[in-house]
Amino acid sequence: MIDIVIAGVGQTPVGEHWGISLRDLAMEAVSKAQMDANGLIPEAIYVGNMLGPVLSHQAHTATLIADYVGLQGIEAVTIEASGASGGAALRMGYLAIASGLVSSCLVVGVEKMTDQTGPGVEAAIATALDSDYEAAQGLTPTAQAAMLMNRYLHTYQAPRSAFGRFPIQAHANAASNPNAMYRNRVKESSYEQAGMVSSPLNIFDIAPAADGAAALVLARRDLLPMQVGNKLVRITGSSIVTDALAIHDRHDPLEFKAVRLSIERACRQSGMLPHDVDLFELHDAYSIYAVQTLEAAGFAERGRGWELALNGEISLTGKIPISTFGGMKARGNPGGAAGIYQAVEAVLQLRGEAKLNQVPEARRAMIQNLGGAGATAVVHIFEAVPEAF
Amino acid sequence: MIDIVIAGVGQTPVGEHWGISLRDLAMEAVSKAQMDANGLIPEAIYVGNMLGPVLSHQAHTATLIADYVGLQGIEAVTIEASGASGGAALRMGYLAIASGLVSSCLVVGVEKMTDQTGPGVEAAIATALDSDYEAAQGLTPTAQAAMLMNRYLHTYQAPRSAFGRFPIQAHANAASNPNAMYRNRVKESSYEQAGMVSSPLNIFDIAPAADGAAALVLARRDLLPMQVGNKLVRITGSSIVTDALAIHDRHDPLEFKAVRLSIERACRQSGMLPHDVDLFELHDAYSIYAVQTLEAAGFAERGRGWELALNGEISLTGKIPISTFGGMKARGNPGGAAGIYQAVEAVLQLRGEAKLNQVPEARRAMIQNLGGAGATAVVHIFEAVPEAF
Repeated sequence: MIDIVIAGVGQTPVGEHWGISLRDLAMEAVSKAQMDANGLIPEAIYVGNMLGPVLSHQAHTATLIADYVGLQGIEAVTIEASGASGGAALRMGYLAIASGLVSSCLVVGVEKMTDQTGPGVEAAIATALDSDYEAAQGLTPTAQAAMLMNRYLHTYQAPRSAFGRFPIQAHANAASNPNAMYRNRVKESSYEQAGMVSSPLNIFDIAPAADGAAALVLARRDLLPMQVGNKLVRITGSSIVTDALAIHDRHDPLEFKAVRLSIERACRQSGMLPHDVDLFELHDAYSIYAVQTLEAAGFAERGRGWELALNGEISLTGKIPISTFGGMKARGNPGGAAGIYQAVEAVLQLRGEAKLNQVPEARRAMIQNLGGAGATAVVHIFEAVPEAF
Repeated sequence: MIDIVIAGVGQTPVGEHWGISLRDLAMEAVSKAQMDANGLIPEAIYVGNMLGPVLSHQAHTATLIADYVGLQGIEAVTIEASGASGGAALRMGYLAIASGLVSSCLVVGVEKMTDQTGPGVEAAIATALDSDYEAAQGLTPTAQAAMLMNRYLHTYQAPRSAFGRFPIQAHANAASNPNAMYRNRVKESSYEQAGMVSSPLNIFDIAPAADGAAALVLARRDLLPMQVGNKLVRITGSSIVTDALAIHDRHDPLEFKAVRLSIERACRQSGMLPHDVDLFELHDAYSIYAVQTLEAAGFAERGRGWELALNGEISLTGKIPISTFGGMKARGNPGGAAGIYQAVEAVLQLRGEAKLNQVPEARRAMIQNLGGAGATAVVHIFEAVPEAF
């Protein structure tokens, strides 16, 4: 098996970038990642993007970016898996290098969601649902998450207020992340009094749509030039598992089955258990997703995932730190780029470069990116490479 | 290197399928391909689709299709590279199996272009151009091809009427293809008198937008169950190369540079030269593309690609048969599915199952799928497997 490493990372600040185009966002992230990898020239570029065709009238994005960043001629492919587009692009880059046919590649996530006219962002992201049997009835991802949370509260008699600990922790972590969209701290009382969006989801239970781009340089370790030998992070597990797209087609909507299976599979490949990871960048697009994911991963029993937050176990020094740079909730959720932000943040943790956000002695990280309400679940496991070769 | 074979193929008729949804088209092609592969259950599905989000309000298409065809749970990723989406999906499936991490997969191309309201098909496919510097100025792919043809006629003083031989040959081949959109023969006089669309392109120089789906079952040969051992076709070459997205950024717009390089690279991997192939399913979305491609591949000198058609060399018994089942022009051009139709047709040729469309003693086939005006060029080379193991 080829040893696959991340040799460079880059990201733009997440936010409302009304003055910066899709290609310019991508270029900033790519330039930073290439610089971080000591100028390594990749053979291919795989771009995760979710809404370019609908919101920016731009498809064919990978070829555009390859051209624009000065890499004309390289292999370029755009990858889409709804909110998991970034994670899926990473998976494709990983498989490409594992094949032995591509020695190095860029994996980019880019999204612009905030300054668009037309159908609006909520209608655009509803293309990730079943268009005939869900979206056409007026269902949106947020309404879907609200139904899941309602069901959860009813089934497990969980305290509504406990969910507030997720955004509170996320905002606390984002406070020291210069790339985060929201760096303000959130008080418990603010959460309690927050405006309702889709009952029972209030404004803090929902990650904000955002603009941003993040990039990774992947390479096979044995062919890396010597000077790129420092600060490497190895990818030891990778998986994509899907579930029924529509929630009404699932046996048990509260079980994130694809999440469970994708974590099992990636962990098996890595030769470890979920409990062996030091941090978990999970897909907290809605706080209910975080709860369901923690349960599916086995960090808590069914119906008790919220207790982890209540007991401080998701903080940087807790049992299972999540959203260490603010997560989707506070770093912001730039759609198809979110999965690459997770990867960049996990790499910074494993390099020991997370500064105020550092998880102590982080050696292993798991990242998880979802499309729809757990319909597509992508998991990657990263490990620090002890020392350079 | 892992030996990668195509173990099954399936296709729907190409046409205006107003009564059939995107998912139903895909299901028909997938069912046929799985049946053809003796019911092999794939581990993953890679779906090429270009316009689902814009024209059918459906993204996340691979997960939807996996779910709908009864393969819930498998890995699913949607691939987009404009008109080369199908070819790019094939490339991703090829890399996945070459990695050793995926043993078998479905590669599907699906597109619905004819019964849509909204922005219209021409605006939708213009998302494949540079949205800021081309599409925003009103440029469409057809207008772009018209400029290329104008430039070609001017530069090489080529006879306008010679271009008619491409659609005439395509329609002649489609006449015996039950899945073709247009099975009528075209006379030279009809071509001469055809309505102008974007001068100098008349209606016969442009492949029709269409609906359709096609599917392949890919597998590593050593892990195939015994009963799937017959009728195999091996993939011996695969490449994607890009060029500047906008034509105005190219040194020489009449040179399809990415086409040349992608063919060189795939041939080198196969250990052969372009002249060694027995047929070439090229991307004849416009007849000028066919001419430029034949020249880039080295089948004719620059400025003389049209002579091949004039001399009958592109017919089923010519030096380099193209569009053997009608090509995009007459079989129809279902966007992101077109590249998979090419693959299905090449497989039928190599199996000796092309009936009236059979190229005599076809052992090697090259297929080529383009995104934009040669901005993304995907090439695959197939070889017949002499006998089953």
